Amino acid sequence: MNLLDTIRTPRDVKVLNRSQLKELAKEIRQTLVNVTAVNGGHLASNLGIVELTIALHRVFDSPRDRFIFDVSHQTYVHKLLTGRNDAKFRQIRMDGGYSGFSDPTESEHDAFIAGHAGTALSVALGFAYARDRIGSRRNSHVVAILGDGSLTCGMTLEALNNLVTTTKRLIVVVNDNEFFIDRNVGAISIYLNKILISGLYRAVSNATKKILGNGKLGKAVVRGIRRLKRAVKSIILPTSYFEYYGLRYFGPIDGHDISKLEEILEFCKFSKVPVLVHVKTIKGYGYEDAIHFPEKFHGIDPEQVCGITTSQPDTISYGEILGKELTKLAQKDKTVVGVVAAMARGTGLSYLRDHCPDQYVDVGIAEEHAVIFSAALAKCGMRPVCAIYSTFLQRAFDQVLHDVCLQNLPVVFCLDRAGIAVHDGMTHHGIFDLSYLRLIPNAVILQPENAQEFINALHSAFQWHCPVFIRYPRSCNRNVDLSTIKFSQYLPFGKAGKIIEGGRVCFLTLGSMVDLANEICQKLKNFGIQGGIVDMIFVKPLDEEILRDIAKNYELVVTLEDNVLMGGFGSAILEFYNDNDIKINVLRYGWPDEFIKHGTSLDVLRVEHGLSVTNIMDKVLSILNIHIS
Amino acid sequence: MNLLDTIRTPRDVKVLNRSQLKELAKEIRQTLVNVTAVNGGHLASNLGIVELTIALHRVFDSPRDRFIFDVSHQTYVHKLLTGRNDAKFRQIRMDGGYSGFSDPTESEHDAFIAGHAGTALSVALGFAYARDRIGSRRNSHVVAILGDGSLTCGMTLEALNNLVTTTKRLIVVVNDNEFFIDRNVGAISIYLNKILISGLYRAVSNATKKILGNGKLGKAVVRGIRRLKRAVKSIILPTSYFEYYGLRYFGPIDGHDISKLEEILEFCKFSKVPVLVHVKTIKGYGYEDAIHFPEKFHGIDPEQVCGITTSQPDTISYGEILGKELTKLAQKDKTVVGVVAAMARGTGLSYLRDHCPDQYVDVGIAEEHAVIFSAALAKCGMRPVCAIYSTFLQRAFDQVLHDVCLQNLPVVFCLDRAGIAVHDGMTHHGIFDLSYLRLIPNAVILQPENAQEFINALHSAFQWHCPVFIRYPRSCNRNVDLSTIKFSQYLPFGKAGKIIEGGRVCFLTLGSMVDLANEICQKLKNFGIQGGIVDMIFVKPLDEEILRDIAKNYELVVTLEDNVLMGGFGSAILEFYNDNDIKINVLRYGWPDEFIKHGTSLDVLRVEHGLSVTNIMDKVLSILNIHIS
Repeated sequence: MNLLDTIRTPRDVKVLNRSQLKELAKEIRQTLVNVTAVNGGHLASNLGIVELTIALHRVFDSPRDRFIFDVSHQTYVHKLLTGRNDAKFRQIRMDGGYSGFSDPTESEHDAFIAGHAGTALSVALGFAYARDRIGSRRNSHVVAILGDGSLTCGMTLEALNNLVTTTKRLIVVVNDNEFFIDRNVGAISIYLNKILISGLYRAVSNATKKILGNGKLGKAVVRGIRRLKRAVKSIILPTSYFEYYGLRYFGPIDGHDISKLEEILEFCKFSKVPVLVHVKTIKGYGYEDAIHFPEKFHGIDPEQVCGITTSQPDTISYGEILGKELTKLAQKDKTVVGVVAAMARGTGLSYLRDHCPDQYVDVGIAEEHAVIFSAALAKCGMRPVCAIYSTFLQRAFDQVLHDVCLQNLPVVFCLDRAGIAVHDGMTHHGIFDLSYLRLIPNAVILQPENAQEFINALHSAFQWHCPVFIRYPRSCNRNVDLSTIKFSQYLPFGKAGKIIEGGRVCFLTLGSMVDLANEICQKLKNFGIQGGIVDMIFVKPLDEEILRDIAKNYELVVTLEDNVLMGGFGSAILEFYNDNDIKINVLRYGWPDEFIKHGTSLDVLRVEHGLSVTNIMDKVLSILNIHIS
Repeated sequence: MNLLDTIRTPRDVKVLNRSQLKELAKEIRQTLVNVTAVNGGHLASNLGIVELTIALHRVFDSPRDRFIFDVSHQTYVHKLLTGRNDAKFRQIRMDGGYSGFSDPTESEHDAFIAGHAGTALSVALGFAYARDRIGSRRNSHVVAILGDGSLTCGMTLEALNNLVTTTKRLIVVVNDNEFFIDRNVGAISIYLNKILISGLYRAVSNATKKILGNGKLGKAVVRGIRRLKRAVKSIILPTSYFEYYGLRYFGPIDGHDISKLEEILEFCKFSKVPVLVHVKTIKGYGYEDAIHFPEKFHGIDPEQVCGITTSQPDTISYGEILGKELTKLAQKDKTVVGVVAAMARGTGLSYLRDHCPDQYVDVGIAEEHAVIFSAALAKCGMRPVCAIYSTFLQRAFDQVLHDVCLQNLPVVFCLDRAGIAVHDGMTHHGIFDLSYLRLIPNAVILQPENAQEFINALHSAFQWHCPVFIRYPRSCNRNVDLSTIKFSQYLPFGKAGKIIEGGRVCFLTLGSMVDLANEICQKLKNFGIQGGIVDMIFVKPLDEEILRDIAKNYELVVTLEDNVLMGGFGSAILEFYNDNDIKINVLRYGWPDEFIKHGTSLDVLRVEHGLSVTNIMDKVLSILNIHIS
């Protein structure tokens, strides 16, 4: 690890010769493998972008020139080359370590935050506009680096449509690995493949040559044919898709050939019109060469290496349960259809895809379309299950409200990764959904406590003729043997689940927050308090009957939620008690009104934000006027 | 009005002859003018689509075949032809009348709700998928009717990208009036214009003719050239933009020629691939012929006739104030830039456009891009003001959270049409913003009470280095002379405005809700109660000092907001008092947890939903234990 350690700034990359660059790429890959083996993270996408990132830093002059990385989980290499090859990098995605995404608070080389796909082109247009209009770093370059998957995203297309009227100088690099999180879908993907084949132009070109080679034509005819050929050339190339948007197209370029990349990027610097460079890379490129720790990777699912993250879940994931259970439902009922937005594996619906391909739709990174499409399916009598991460459903807030809930359509939403996404951090926490969904009329919102309740909830949702939002974290809080769990009973609509009776204080919990309540109650026993616990399940509608009972029987209600406090579950409880003129002390616990950083573990984050067992217990005791000796 | 009155179902349209159709179109136009003259509404877009709607109903068989109208404010004609030419149509947009948009609860001919642009193609894909897979109305046709403006919208483009992999049978009609709500923008718009010019193909075609006409060529050469011409023909036509997406393109067609429209639509029914029919219409077409009530329209701003609605605001609009004030700010500071999403006139920023065109950006119907673009401008040191209707900002919820607020970027959001949109109804009420914005960390949210406070708020927002959301309804509650109002002072950050001291009960109000509080307080005087009133201005952060004072000095706090109760302003007050362990009775008034229909007036809607003066006063008196004799 000699060469990489000498890189303090991008300037140090510029002076290396070809063989050193090769060595640098190798060392970077080794570092990536070592670090993600310990911390998890996006290994494959970073392995794929090593040469491209090196070339970008050799040709451009960051931070003066600005790189806008879309999604930005592929910026590990960029971090290593911009002064962040240090202890914090070893701690990436952990407490005190760097974020797994772009973060301007880390380095001036990170121009903008990212985490959700499809934002880069809009950001780049803003940067270019500011440069052109007020001379914010006049003459500098703005380079947007997108994955091919982002071209399926509405925002990217909105920006593309605005590009030509916004700036004349912008460089767009499409890092095409034909993979994105899952396989890329749709017309644009087909189109990119066509470019790669690109036989058409060659065919026409050859035909013209033949005609001209005939040698028996008059001058005027030859001139006419030549003119015709030029016209054909300028339009017949499938590049014209981007040219409709005013972009000059270059590509495809081998994304692992630094020299070629430098050459084309250098050329782009002098373009008087916006350019798009289509770079072909291979996700996970050089992985085999990089593994020096075979024991860590032995037997690993190769899909996992190329997938979103290498970190292993501790327990069975809700996604796995969903995939299998939904497949059973789909096999019995042809109207059941799973809809995902480029997250087949993450949501577990890859299982449905593999077993019932005709009842599975992946729309690409297009959450808005996914939601309206599902609404329309429901309107036509189908039973769509729209599986989207909590944080990404934010994308389709209006569609949930305006297209699904307004018509009270029976779409079942499965919100994976609800709650804190420990290592992914600020851009990925699913801690807003209870608040942003609860305000929508007709929405039914629930969070099952365990695998059994989840399966029951899924079956139940099909019985209710309204939009149902089932939220859950990635993994079950306890390990379960899936083969022993089967649908057992429908959940009573709007009714709480398991209730542990107690005295003086009652904890209202959602999902795995019951574990926190249990821990606290264990400790409360030392003070002679038997805390009650209610697994509320439903956030909307609330189980009003149980809430009335609780107010009669307890002095204090404590709400525990893996969501922000603003407008969330605890807020709903306050509203209920207030509006029904029921007086009861309510103590609310959830995430505070700030963006929460990534960390090493959920426990660490909880302690940092006042959600520790001790903290809550102390507060409860003080309200109950019990003094800790 | 003889012919139109005979139309009970679309079948009645099918039997008419050419001259009758002409007469029908005339009568429809007359009806549109008469009704919108009284009720307001979208006159121009409906005048433009008369012939197209007639043709659609003659060729297709609704409700078996399904029309998905995008936005759907252009469905008045469709309503008239589908059994709704009745008293409720005369009451359109009013209490008991039909909605000004598609509404499946009104008629089986309205396949889906709409109101926000860009949803139709996704809906149509869902309908087509359900038909193809489970035989929901097998062999029926699904026809999406979009405006050209919707082609700038990310959702439409997401759907377009999914089209070819979803269905082989879909008919997309692009109703191109080059206008949309404001002028259409961006590359796609330029592209559509190119089609209209379409000189290129003709040129090449002529060139080929010339060459072939030469007559001195051998057979092989002629064959070669012919082949080349075919290749050119299939690709050189700019139609290929849509062909990238797997659509066969037809157009442009004269949208006011019923026979031609019928011919092409009939042809489309038998297409084995999805088709796009590009129809040219003129917004407001036939308006001159239709005016029989010149006195009603005399002197009307012609832009208004072609604009969104003909109903006249009663008082000066906040948009007008914004446009003028922002222009003053922009003239002094070159970093100020206004960003709109196809709503220059509606938001008042047309004034900025006309006076400072270099500090104005219209991105088309692309709210998501508008927000991220603004975020990037702010990041580069510019001072973007992003003016979007409250209901449409729902579109960019994730971008507000993830791109603006997470980085605490100083974007000033001006949310017009906040609160109930009386006549537009369910799809347009801006009554969710306080709830969906309040949950976002770093968001500063306020609602000025009057024009003066609004101007001060706008100036103040530029002083605060964070995202600021200023919400306001269309019009000021009192008429003001704009020439007399100037920026007077910065608002103290997070502090309440005018305070009227009182006893026992205190009303916490936002914006024009102060008028309701005043009315109630007037009546309370009869019972010896002097109600206090606080113009809170800020929803986030709350003025905690004043809230503490109020709790000390009053028995009862009443919150009044033009927002849903779920998670809104009143909820924030509850959270504050609860979390600070302050005991005080709080009575919350706002919109209930249901979708609110359109109506004749705000007062009627308030009465219907428990927000009348009497209702609130009675409740206050009963809590204060004062009995009404």
